[in-house]
Amino acid sequence: MKGFAMMKIGETGWVEKEIPACGPNDAICKPLALAPCTSDVHTVWAGAIGDRHEMILGHEAVGEVVQVGSEVKDFKPGDKVLIAAITPDWDSLEAQAGYAMHSGGMLAGWKFSNFKDGVFGEYFHVNDADGNLCLLPEGMDIAAACMLAAMVPTGFHGVELADIQFGETVAVIGIGPVGLMSVAAAAIRGASSIYAVGSRKNCCDLAMEFGATDIINYRNGDIVEQILAKTNGKGVDKVVVAGGDNDTFAQALAILKPGGIIGNVNYLGEGDIIPIPRVEWGVGMGHKQIRGGLMPGGRLRLERLANLVMTGRIHPEKLVTHRFVGLENVEPALMLMKDKPRDLIKPLVIIEE
Amino acid sequence: MKGFAMMKIGETGWVEKEIPACGPNDAICKPLALAPCTSDVHTVWAGAIGDRHEMILGHEAVGEVVQVGSEVKDFKPGDKVLIAAITPDWDSLEAQAGYAMHSGGMLAGWKFSNFKDGVFGEYFHVNDADGNLCLLPEGMDIAAACMLAAMVPTGFHGVELADIQFGETVAVIGIGPVGLMSVAAAAIRGASSIYAVGSRKNCCDLAMEFGATDIINYRNGDIVEQILAKTNGKGVDKVVVAGGDNDTFAQALAILKPGGIIGNVNYLGEGDIIPIPRVEWGVGMGHKQIRGGLMPGGRLRLERLANLVMTGRIHPEKLVTHRFVGLENVEPALMLMKDKPRDLIKPLVIIEE
Amino acid sequence: MKGFAMMKIGETGWVEKEIPACGPNDAICKPLALAPCTSDVHTVWAGAIGDRHEMILGHEAVGEVVQVGSEVKDFKPGDKVLIAAITPDWDSLEAQAGYAMHSGGMLAGWKFSNFKDGVFGEYFHVNDADGNLCLLPEGMDIAAACMLAAMVPTGFHGVELADIQFGETVAVIGIGPVGLMSVAAAAIRGASSIYAVGSRKNCCDLAMEFGATDIINYRNGDIVEQILAKTNGKGVDKVVVAGGDNDTFAQALAILKPGGIIGNVNYLGEGDIIPIPRVEWGVGMGHKQIRGGLMPGGRLRLERLANLVMTGRIHPEKLVTHRFVGLENVEPALMLMKDKPRDLIKPLVIIEE
Amino acid sequence: MKGFAMMKIGETGWVEKEIPACGPNDAICKPLALAPCTSDVHTVWAGAIGDRHEMILGHEAVGEVVQVGSEVKDFKPGDKVLIAAITPDWDSLEAQAGYAMHSGGMLAGWKFSNFKDGVFGEYFHVNDADGNLCLLPEGMDIAAACMLAAMVPTGFHGVELADIQFGETVAVIGIGPVGLMSVAAAAIRGASSIYAVGSRKNCCDLAMEFGATDIINYRNGDIVEQILAKTNGKGVDKVVVAGGDNDTFAQALAILKPGGIIGNVNYLGEGDIIPIPRVEWGVGMGHKQIRGGLMPGGRLRLERLANLVMTGRIHPEKLVTHRFVGLENVEPALMLMKDKPRDLIKPLVIIEE
Repeated sequence: MKGFAMMKIGETGWVEKEIPACGPNDAICKPLALAPCTSDVHTVWAGAIGDRHEMILGHEAVGEVVQVGSEVKDFKPGDKVLIAAITPDWDSLEAQAGYAMHSGGMLAGWKFSNFKDGVFGEYFHVNDADGNLCLLPEGMDIAAACMLAAMVPTGFHGVELADIQFGETVAVIGIGPVGLMSVAAAAIRGASSIYAVGSRKNCCDLAMEFGATDIINYRNGDIVEQILAKTNGKGVDKVVVAGGDNDTFAQALAILKPGGIIGNVNYLGEGDIIPIPRVEWGVGMGHKQIRGGLMPGGRLRLERLANLVMTGRIHPEKLVTHRFVGLENVEPALMLMKDKPRDLIKPLVIIEE
Repeated sequence: MKGFAMMKIGETGWVEKEIPACGPNDAICKPLALAPCTSDVHTVWAGAIGDRHEMILGHEAVGEVVQVGSEVKDFKPGDKVLIAAITPDWDSLEAQAGYAMHSGGMLAGWKFSNFKDGVFGEYFHVNDADGNLCLLPEGMDIAAACMLAAMVPTGFHGVELADIQFGETVAVIGIGPVGLMSVAAAAIRGASSIYAVGSRKNCCDLAMEFGATDIINYRNGDIVEQILAKTNGKGVDKVVVAGGDNDTFAQALAILKPGGIIGNVNYLGEGDIIPIPRVEWGVGMGHKQIRGGLMPGGRLRLERLANLVMTGRIHPEKLVTHRFVGLENVEPALMLMKDKPRDLIKPLVIIEE
Repeated sequence: MKGFAMMKIGETGWVEKEIPACGPNDAICKPLALAPCTSDVHTVWAGAIGDRHEMILGHEAVGEVVQVGSEVKDFKPGDKVLIAAITPDWDSLEAQAGYAMHSGGMLAGWKFSNFKDGVFGEYFHVNDADGNLCLLPEGMDIAAACMLAAMVPTGFHGVELADIQFGETVAVIGIGPVGLMSVAAAAIRGASSIYAVGSRKNCCDLAMEFGATDIINYRNGDIVEQILAKTNGKGVDKVVVAGGDNDTFAQALAILKPGGIIGNVNYLGEGDIIPIPRVEWGVGMGHKQIRGGLMPGGRLRLERLANLVMTGRIHPEKLVTHRFVGLENVEPALMLMKDKPRDLIKPLVIIEE
Repeated sequence: MKGFAMMKIGETGWVEKEIPACGPNDAICKPLALAPCTSDVHTVWAGAIGDRHEMILGHEAVGEVVQVGSEVKDFKPGDKVLIAAITPDWDSLEAQAGYAMHSGGMLAGWKFSNFKDGVFGEYFHVNDADGNLCLLPEGMDIAAACMLAAMVPTGFHGVELADIQFGETVAVIGIGPVGLMSVAAAAIRGASSIYAVGSRKNCCDLAMEFGATDIINYRNGDIVEQILAKTNGKGVDKVVVAGGDNDTFAQALAILKPGGIIGNVNYLGEGDIIPIPRVEWGVGMGHKQIRGGLMPGGRLRLERLANLVMTGRIHPEKLVTHRFVGLENVEPALMLMKDKPRDLIKPLVIIEE
């Protein structure tokens, strides 16, 4: 089979490999739609997870089952399925502790294009099929379905980490595709004012459509000052960090009330430390919690988020600004993600029209 | 001053009383708008809280401060304010334990028209003004403001008790004004399918507008069977009980998945027991939690719910189907609540046009 | 192989069966120690789970692995292991929702001597070995190890359900072996006063040794009155129900403060309903939560509870009042459990001295 | 009245002041016992909270009520009382949000020797007496009572922040008087292994007596390596930080499992930032929560912790290594705290024998 791979740090290419073997609990799928992710870019060109050789890229896909193992009870060849980017080992101690995304070690529930070949091939392997696949709901838009692999669950997890309650005020820092889903999640989790921090026009427009009440543009001045001004100097109840860099946490703490929570879902790819400002953190006693976590994966999660799409609560298909057809187009789609033109939010590759 | 009172069980009338005294932490207000509640009807005609004599009725009001005590820091005469039906003692042990609505004893945070005169008078007394008043936001619809006294916080509390998570399925049993706010709350708390159980046309229409996905009408058959049929026999993740009677809990348990929660906000006015069916409750081991609680009161709660109105997340003014002008009209408004014509959801009395 | 079985309702006997087959994720074990449980008695003589034919009984065991499936990574033949009475399917939706004990349906994580042969045989089958076995810590007392199968996790779960916080007051109703472990759990969860409700001398003595501060004996008068008298009429913060019957909940609610929680781990074997008293439950609004749940199973849970034994925090071996040697003695041990002499807390059968 | 005060940064002395005035919700107390705290040392000699002039020091006291305001219901002159170092405004928004210690602004629930005169005088003022006083239980050791002001609630709060569950492994970094109470709290919250990090002999001995299973002495090598060695490289489930400095968090993260929590109760007095190591924090996605908070104050909290003393669950009087008699001896007691001889854990000043 053919796959689009990282050859080594800084280099991509097409490879020919054996179709992966299917263990008794596993499934083999072929893709119906694919999307490249900023983290694929980090993996290849920043070497964020270290070097890899001829590893097929990609972890966002909608698929069709072509083979299942002997112990798989709930899926069969021909089933069209959602697959999350994170595919835990559900019998691990970490899963039993409620942190399945870290099964086998910190972040190790992330397997596609990390510890094994990803989804940018003619076929791909899914461990623990009963635990990690979800039937594609009839009538679901394929773009929405593909956004359920990583964009929706990651954006929503920021809001879960921040534990937003009815009527709370929230800042969402970073409104790329993940942050936009955090805005949508905050709105349907009961936030009142949502301050969306960003600057690109189509992202800002979509943030307002998804439920933001205010756009905070850093080009108009310091975002901390802007948010404090809008909240009578009190700051917000919760902050979701879905962009920025290591210094963003200092801003987040400066706008956060005592008793508040920061929920981070931004991959921090560089630097040795994240500096936490001592005074703004209340000399260690301000009850400003700092949380950050990889998206949860698994079938139940997929089913629940899919139901939000099917009941019209969220519209993740609106993230998709660029569409391609044909597996071969994962290459230009990834390059688009690398180059990030200002009108891009998210590209999608449909395998067959 | 004049007030509309319960004279004794089964009898109402107008009384003349002294304006209440204002302690150092208290405020005296006059009403700007009032609403009668089903519980006023229970109080007078069912004797639900026992007998009372010449006690002024009412606990849903928007007001204007006319006097404050020496220790009140944040409010002054002339301030227009929201007031919750529940006005806790914030320095009580129960408040410190997180259950301010039970300060001084179970349900004793409910003071208006229970342990002291209510709001259906020319003036009324508010204990702990700094803890229990909230400035009326500029531009807020007076009908929405009055619904923030009890309808919104009670309906929302059902959803909080049920602890709805992203994508969960929910049944809301009872869609009078409180249940309608539970539907709205479930929708902005992240529920996917919301099964609203009711039959009156304008309530069903408003439930759909507020976010219900399905109306379950008991006139079309057993509601348990209907909901199980719609969920492939699996039932729902959570149930909010906002109507019905003691037997409703058996229905709620029959449609609830193991691990689910019932959040009750329905006042159970009659009968000795609530029968919990042993088998449906998993022989005591099914992890089907049964919760029920009085709405939380207090200023923070009011501010947060008011922000949901001001940011357009909820539209409680749509509950108001009948409007009156003039304090003297609390009497016909209450009678309307007693008679419950099929087109009634909630009446409102505005004191001065 | 030989096993001690339920032949039909009301009848037990020894049967000869094939050694169970081992699937790719499974293990086959032989017992090192066994204990009969009151629920075995319910199963045979009360027909509590319906009729069963030639089903091997028992779900409390310490074992040795004799065979593992191809996908099992962490265990091998010869390993001595703890096994919980509840052995969930960890890739189920219920497990992903945090309720693994209900994987496959309410209570269906309970498989031994319910949906398949139990542990009272020469060999027994364990599904999902990596998720459900735990290495026997070196030096652990075999009696303590066997109590980790069901007595410890069930007793502890009552305290988890009741969510006891530092300094809270707790009543534990029922101090058989499960309730005694609830007393021990409450003490090491931070309860202050623990009111243990029971009457048998050795149970009362052990309750005091495990951390109870007061014994409430129903022979000395109504337990509600006794507990209210000891708490100045205020009642307790939390209640664990580990014994009694359907009417025990009315007592539990009568002694529970608003904002409190009942945690039930008593199997309710009879009757149609559990009657909840309307007034004591705060007319549905008293914030008195009613929870009840089957013990959690699985490897992580076993490891954590085993660590409590190994660090000397708990001493479950003290539950064992009667000891037998030899598999054939599961029969008299079960009869002892059926007859419940007053000096019995828990019998243990060691297979080979 | 006479009081021992901070004259300015670096200087202490005795001052003569008016007895403080008593508002309608307040109480005036005289001390029965006092204890100096490391934070008094920070306040005077490090200028940690900025300059203060003739401000009476001290926030740890047991007292006797000499006057109460008109609105105080539950206390009267002559009552002997516990007082927490933190005395919130219970009708504030922050208290209603569950963070009373931040009422009026971050950390502003801390009033004694911060925003008003402290307790090292002949008399002191307590705001919101009904919410902040607690009757001294009959028979309570005066040393234990005085430790309930700050040492016990702070140490226990570290464990609450870390949210320890049954059988979890915990490291407590820093075993001065606060950390020792964290060890005691972890043990009665259900931890299994407790790794106490410290070096002074009497602290280590008391840590073992309070429930530590292992002492980790930095003089024996890197504490991270020692703890990883003892946990097979896996680290611990939770960390309580009760000592060290800003760099301690890097150590805490290095020994913490994904899904774990750091609960900090150490006052971070110096430096601009707390450096969080990016990789050990899981590139922002490791679900390692960082929490830190000021101790909760108030009457309910005092009552509950006092009950733990009275039921023999904890023995905070063992912290007291040095005793003085007479108000004038707060001066040498404070100097002892400043000089920290190796045999000191905590000094106590009893006003009259």
